[in-house]
Amino acid sequence: MKKLFNKTQTWLECILCGRKKDLLEERKFRCVCGGLYDVKHNLECPLPYVLKKDFYERLELHQSISGVWRYKELIMPYLPKRFVVSLSEGNVPIIEAGRNLEEWVGGDLELWLILEGMTPTGSFKDFGMTVLISVAKAAGIEAVSCASTGDTSASAAAYAAAAGMKCVVILPRGKVTPAQLAQPLVHGATVITLPGSFDDCMKVQRELTEKYGVYPANSLNPARIEGHQATVFQVAQFFNWDFPDWFVVPVGNGSNCSSIGKARRLLLDLKMAENNCRILGCQSLAANPLAESWGRATWKPQERNSKEFLEYWKMLYAPVAVRETTATAARIGDPVSRDKVMREIVASNGRMKTATERDLNEAVSVCGKDGFFVCPQTGIALAGLREAVKEKTINPGSRVVVVSTATGLKFTDSAAKNLAKNIIDAKNCKTDTVARIMKI
Amino acid sequence: MKKLFNKTQTWLECILCGRKKDLLEERKFRCVCGGLYDVKHNLECPLPYVLKKDFYERLELHQSISGVWRYKELIMPYLPKRFVVSLSEGNVPIIEAGRNLEEWVGGDLELWLILEGMTPTGSFKDFGMTVLISVAKAAGIEAVSCASTGDTSASAAAYAAAAGMKCVVILPRGKVTPAQLAQPLVHGATVITLPGSFDDCMKVQRELTEKYGVYPANSLNPARIEGHQATVFQVAQFFNWDFPDWFVVPVGNGSNCSSIGKARRLLLDLKMAENNCRILGCQSLAANPLAESWGRATWKPQERNSKEFLEYWKMLYAPVAVRETTATAARIGDPVSRDKVMREIVASNGRMKTATERDLNEAVSVCGKDGFFVCPQTGIALAGLREAVKEKTINPGSRVVVVSTATGLKFTDSAAKNLAKNIIDAKNCKTDTVARIMKI
Repeated sequence: MKKLFNKTQTWLECILCGRKKDLLEERKFRCVCGGLYDVKHNLECPLPYVLKKDFYERLELHQSISGVWRYKELIMPYLPKRFVVSLSEGNVPIIEAGRNLEEWVGGDLELWLILEGMTPTGSFKDFGMTVLISVAKAAGIEAVSCASTGDTSASAAAYAAAAGMKCVVILPRGKVTPAQLAQPLVHGATVITLPGSFDDCMKVQRELTEKYGVYPANSLNPARIEGHQATVFQVAQFFNWDFPDWFVVPVGNGSNCSSIGKARRLLLDLKMAENNCRILGCQSLAANPLAESWGRATWKPQERNSKEFLEYWKMLYAPVAVRETTATAARIGDPVSRDKVMREIVASNGRMKTATERDLNEAVSVCGKDGFFVCPQTGIALAGLREAVKEKTINPGSRVVVVSTATGLKFTDSAAKNLAKNIIDAKNCKTDTVARIMKI
Repeated sequence: MKKLFNKTQTWLECILCGRKKDLLEERKFRCVCGGLYDVKHNLECPLPYVLKKDFYERLELHQSISGVWRYKELIMPYLPKRFVVSLSEGNVPIIEAGRNLEEWVGGDLELWLILEGMTPTGSFKDFGMTVLISVAKAAGIEAVSCASTGDTSASAAAYAAAAGMKCVVILPRGKVTPAQLAQPLVHGATVITLPGSFDDCMKVQRELTEKYGVYPANSLNPARIEGHQATVFQVAQFFNWDFPDWFVVPVGNGSNCSSIGKARRLLLDLKMAENNCRILGCQSLAANPLAESWGRATWKPQERNSKEFLEYWKMLYAPVAVRETTATAARIGDPVSRDKVMREIVASNGRMKTATERDLNEAVSVCGKDGFFVCPQTGIALAGLREAVKEKTINPGSRVVVVSTATGLKFTDSAAKNLAKNIIDAKNCKTDTVARIMKI
């Protein structure tokens, strides 16, 4: 069979030892040296102004062109279009923060949110999964698998279904809610429950990949990172190819930081954007291995934008034992993509922040009062941003874009529980009683 | 105070007796004769080709312009822009049906879905609520209320929050789920529970409007219908100002049928679209007063496109006692907007269909296998469409657009319950066991 593209066009490259692999042939997605892979392309792009014109024209057709594949030349240039598996993802709103959020964060920012919950499966994972499943289709893959209780399994199941591919989701029996089961089941995934913990599921998932060659749909697979880059491309295009001063993101396994950093470097390389933008990575106190080790570092902030600091930070890094948190999707004690996160935070002269449980829940409520129902992970980013503003890491007037990673509709139980105290019980069914409660 | 617009520009008009009222002064939204109001505008539109050009230019700016307010000239032309309360709603995907759905429906259709669940609060209600709350703001309203366990209260609460307005949601105590409570609570609505049934709540809501002048956010208020028209405008624009042959919609209180019919007549009047398009209204067997009375009518199908038939149908109509159904959002035995639904079905030479519980749930599963998680009400529309195809009401090759009214994420409990039988329990945590289940 003629190969769709060769290793001089698109390839995998280990971020530690530089070893190269074939993207379409790789099944394990972990280098023999233990390193993660980057996807690399030999970009032969049209001139920036031609590309920009194309991107605007496709935006005009937005109801038929995905907000991810709008940027195909930058995301997966050599993949033949017939392999693209899209669910019309990614044309999401970029909105100015409402007055409540603006006041809560403080610091006189020009504050924006990109609402990545307004996607087919309700989370930012769709940005990446459309690319992962498209690459899998091109590689002739028949089944993908993952062990995830939330957004990843929902997204993998949906895109696998669209591709006519099998998807296996492995979950701990009795430890997931109907809401978490609904999406994989509706999308026809094979849902297998194990009589064990979530860690047992992760172990099985890892061995399925390592021993049986089952294609992983989880964060190990760097094809996903390529799609997540559309966040940066969309924001840059929205601001007329100007970067914001800061991107603020929650960090779980780290795909957001990784992809924002990669896309940032790409647009700078291509001279499609010229100013720097910095990444603020935020973690909850319940699971903050990156923010915690960043905090333990003794170097001055202005000295952290260097390879030497990166090595030092890697040395300081240690996994943490996770605690309970509303922000379950980022409850990860040892992020898969930690090396990439560190690389991008350092390269962008970025920062890490920790958010308390109280603050992240408060942030969700504050957004609600502006009319937006965001997930607790968005709350982590907003609470981290507020800390950074307080410490004057971010200057007044800065243009800041916060990545809102999922819709609050995936977290209705915790939201209802947190706010149940606000329900008013009327003592009878009379209209006058209700009117009195309403003070009219 | 100078009035924002007068009764010769935009007004309310009773659909039964023709009495006119002032949109900004009206509080009860029911004529003394008992009739519902239409919103009417004295449209002084630019020429169609100028308008179309503007609409395309705004589409290019879609990440900053609402998919509803893109059509402001047709929706609320005299409302000053400073009163517009938007949450970036309405730029939703219009997608071709996947292969599973296409096969399930049959009939060799050109089948499309407009995914109106990809909105800020997850349902089509946002299309209308942005207009209702904008009009309320222009009218100086400080509080709105509704009695709804689902989409309406979520949307009303979100837009009222964005407008800095109070929202009161009245619910039966102990009869709503945390998921149903979460959205109004997050958006800071005053949630009042009554020790009674949902009908008791509706009665209190009605009396709050009639006796206390509390502004209603429910289906009575025709400002909502104006916004829902954007469904038709978007679809027409998407198909280069050609109507599809059929719009297929679920009918609960009837705002979808009403607005699609109104928008259809408007574009035909303005000569912005020229072909006819017909409306297929679908109801579940559990709550089908309109489809049931349509079915009892003895006139031949080809004779039903007349005023005489409309009068006859109204005579046949009777409320029904509702039964249990997964499609709770359309579980309405006596729809508020029934007169408007009948008017538009008859005017468009449309049809009504009933969907069985089994079929509507199956439709949700089938969409899931194409990668889309739709709500059970979308299932009603799809199951009704399949019936219409079987009976050859809809010809092969017809272009059909189904309105998907909400995201399945609002109905995870029923979806998980319906599909729990598909979960496979592994007897231990060994990878070999899982591999055997996967048949690899």
